[in-house]
Amino acid sequence: MYSGAQLSLYPMSDDYVGIILESLHALDPYRSQCRIETDDLSTLVVGPPEQLFPAMRDLFLGAAATGCHCVLSATVSRGCPGEPDDAICTPRTVPRPQSLETRIAGAIRAVAKAERTGRPVAAQFSLYPLGPDDYMDEIYGCIAFLKDSGVYGIAKNFCTKLRGDAGPVFAALNESFLSFGPLDGHVALDLTVSANSPTG
Amino acid sequence: MYSGAQLSLYPMSDDYVGIILESLHALDPYRSQCRIETDDLSTLVVGPPEQLFPAMRDLFLGAAATGCHCVLSATVSRGCPGEPDDAICTPRTVPRPQSLETRIAGAIRAVAKAERTGRPVAAQFSLYPLGPDDYMDEIYGCIAFLKDSGVYGIAKNFCTKLRGDAGPVFAALNESFLSFGPLDGHVALDLTVSANSPTG
Repeated sequence: MYSGAQLSLYPMSDDYVGIILESLHALDPYRSQCRIETDDLSTLVVGPPEQLFPAMRDLFLGAAATGCHCVLSATVSRGCPGEPDDAICTPRTVPRPQSLETRIAGAIRAVAKAERTGRPVAAQFSLYPLGPDDYMDEIYGCIAFLKDSGVYGIAKNFCTKLRGDAGPVFAALNESFLSFGPLDGHVALDLTVSANSPTG
Repeated sequence: MYSGAQLSLYPMSDDYVGIILESLHALDPYRSQCRIETDDLSTLVVGPPEQLFPAMRDLFLGAAATGCHCVLSATVSRGCPGEPDDAICTPRTVPRPQSLETRIAGAIRAVAKAERTGRPVAAQFSLYPLGPDDYMDEIYGCIAFLKDSGVYGIAKNFCTKLRGDAGPVFAALNESFLSFGPLDGHVALDLTVSANSPTG
């Protein structure tokens, strides 16, 4: 099992270097549980699948707190057969096989319990369960969950838009990633989160 | 058949609104062939699959010409069974079934013929052929093409990095999207392109 994210932070500011470097400190609490490497395009975070969205949330909240319009973009993946098994990616909780209905209900409960942050965000994402020929059933199940998650925005072509407090929005992303698609299979998620947009 | 992209432009500048609005004029030549709509998170371009990467290239070159560090991020899709058929998405050239080897050779030739722009860029992307259980063969075929494309950078976790002139780089992305994955099937591509990076 291998899980992680290639994430990038885009502060729309002349001081983008300063904002990025300052925001990266928000990842420090995750460094003991994750491998984190940065190049000119993105920061790689490899670790337990449950840690990826909390890490991205904290990174993004750091940048958004500057008041600057900023965007987090990420490619998130679990179970890719082209990646090596890595002990650092061991899930904290081994999920049990459950019906789609049970998973939808569990995901809704998890978002309802998410801590609020006071930071409104807009997000859009696409979920890609790779391999099984019934992958659209998992995608439709995820959309059904999102519609009852409290942070559903609108359906867009190729993606679903969320809006609301960053706490439940990142919780909804986390649930989408963990609870839909094959349990031990390959699932990718393509994410955009925005804060402080002048057109938001 | 439905094909299009949700694309976003991120100029790392206090003048990001002006740069985005000015750059969007680069899409004007595509408006007669594509449906183009913008919201607070992205611009949707729906049209023939062969037009998507040329449109993104021209948009990105407009923003990069300002000298500002800027990033284009996009979710590109063709053949999603959840989207309606749309005549505007009719491919200009209907592809014929060909072996992986033939497609690799054709893609290499197409990139070699790409017009150069004088603008160096770095890019990374992930290709997701959805549905078939041999999807990794298509991904490995695409990587084999990229390694001989002249713009291959490095393999990264979850994605492949390209570098070089924007002309051949966008041509390589176009070939990856059109030539790999099921001919009439569902293929998604998750893209990041960067120019003028201080760490590039």
